[in-house]
Amino acid sequence: MTAWNKKSLCLVSGASQGIGREIAIQFAGKLPSGSTIILTARSENGLNETSSLISKANSSIITKIFPYDMSNPKEKDFTSLLSAFSPNDWEQFILVHNAGTEGTGRPVKDCSNPEEWQKYMSLNLYSMVLLTSAFLKTFKNDEKTIIVNITSLAAVQAIAGFGEYCVGKASREMYMKVLSAESPSLRLLNYSPGPVGTDMVDRCISKIDFSETRGMFEKMKTEGTLVKAPDTVKKLVNIIESGLPAYLRVDYFDRD
Amino acid sequence: MTAWNKKSLCLVSGASQGIGREIAIQFAGKLPSGSTIILTARSENGLNETSSLISKANSSIITKIFPYDMSNPKEKDFTSLLSAFSPNDWEQFILVHNAGTEGTGRPVKDCSNPEEWQKYMSLNLYSMVLLTSAFLKTFKNDEKTIIVNITSLAAVQAIAGFGEYCVGKASREMYMKVLSAESPSLRLLNYSPGPVGTDMVDRCISKIDFSETRGMFEKMKTEGTLVKAPDTVKKLVNIIESGLPAYLRVDYFDRD
Repeated sequence: MTAWNKKSLCLVSGASQGIGREIAIQFAGKLPSGSTIILTARSENGLNETSSLISKANSSIITKIFPYDMSNPKEKDFTSLLSAFSPNDWEQFILVHNAGTEGTGRPVKDCSNPEEWQKYMSLNLYSMVLLTSAFLKTFKNDEKTIIVNITSLAAVQAIAGFGEYCVGKASREMYMKVLSAESPSLRLLNYSPGPVGTDMVDRCISKIDFSETRGMFEKMKTEGTLVKAPDTVKKLVNIIESGLPAYLRVDYFDRD
Repeated sequence: MTAWNKKSLCLVSGASQGIGREIAIQFAGKLPSGSTIILTARSENGLNETSSLISKANSSIITKIFPYDMSNPKEKDFTSLLSAFSPNDWEQFILVHNAGTEGTGRPVKDCSNPEEWQKYMSLNLYSMVLLTSAFLKTFKNDEKTIIVNITSLAAVQAIAGFGEYCVGKASREMYMKVLSAESPSLRLLNYSPGPVGTDMVDRCISKIDFSETRGMFEKMKTEGTLVKAPDTVKKLVNIIESGLPAYLRVDYFDRD
């Protein structure tokens, strides 16, 4: 019996587009009848569209949308959302932290506005920290809980022009590692999806100050070597199917 | 000619006690006449005491104290402090980010107050980011600039009960790595001093929720295996004397 045979309550953040939407759809295609997927992001329209796509992929999955701005997160908002679901109704709980932003593209030495940092870290770190707390405290079932953090090569390798992004992703990965050290019954996955061809790539090309980094993205786009969302999410689905240990970090480009 | 032969303007944060004080004193003992060390921390008394100790170590060093609370940092405060020093008066600029706090000691899943995170990251990340910006923009002399970040094993290895500390130190190290990728003329050092016998250790023992982590510190304290501040700062002095590359990470326990 793999994780995908278990009736699950699943929450995906950043689910209105891109990788988050693809995760929600592919997970829906794998989960058994009666499983519920909570979709959160700012855009209500985007969430409704993801919900429609899930219905087409698997009509036996229930979806709930939760339009929310992660740049000003409050634990009580998450607790209120999650407490509508009884811990006893599910064989498994899956939390996917996908929401994130790419930062300003400026050199880090010019990133000297503390309010800007505060907003960046709220959205990219504190929101996932608070959501994790609410999730774990509401369901109190570490043995049945999987948490996936969508990370990046930028969490472990500095990339010019990606200062906030590197700092944010490094801090998220470390949070997951500490959580694992403290709560060893959880199954935690830091998954780096590779450079996926989403809107974020276009935004990076338009705003990054460093020609080398910009050129790298432009080259991947021109040559068609950006990773496709369905492919990288398929790998994520397979990793989960193989059975997760207490802690794992995987990059899309790691060998199987 | 080593870094220690150059007339330097040096700033040490967290200089009122512990490792920061020891860094200021040992650096003063190595630097040539006319070098100036700016000492910053919250405690004016502590800074004055460090200043006295510097005078005893090397009376040809000028000190300036700057009492400041790093939990609410503003770039303009640092710019105002530094602009009193002409960029042309110095052969070398040394910035040592030593200020830091150890966090609450609670499990990270119970660290769900965004204001608490905001305060922690202000003091432990944003303050060093803003101070770095002010320093680099004021002196505009990357080739002559050394920046030392006092880091920890906790930046790369998760430790139960050290959630905020691990996240803060990981984010600081990544900031340094991105800065190096973007400003390759700087010389940047992430130095992990080892578990030094300071007040922080006693605070950790008293508040950490995890017996394994608490026991590790208690054992080191009882057995006298905590690192001594003069020893670890001596190693730091020697690393700088050997000549720094663009980027380096060293732990006290690394072999020479």
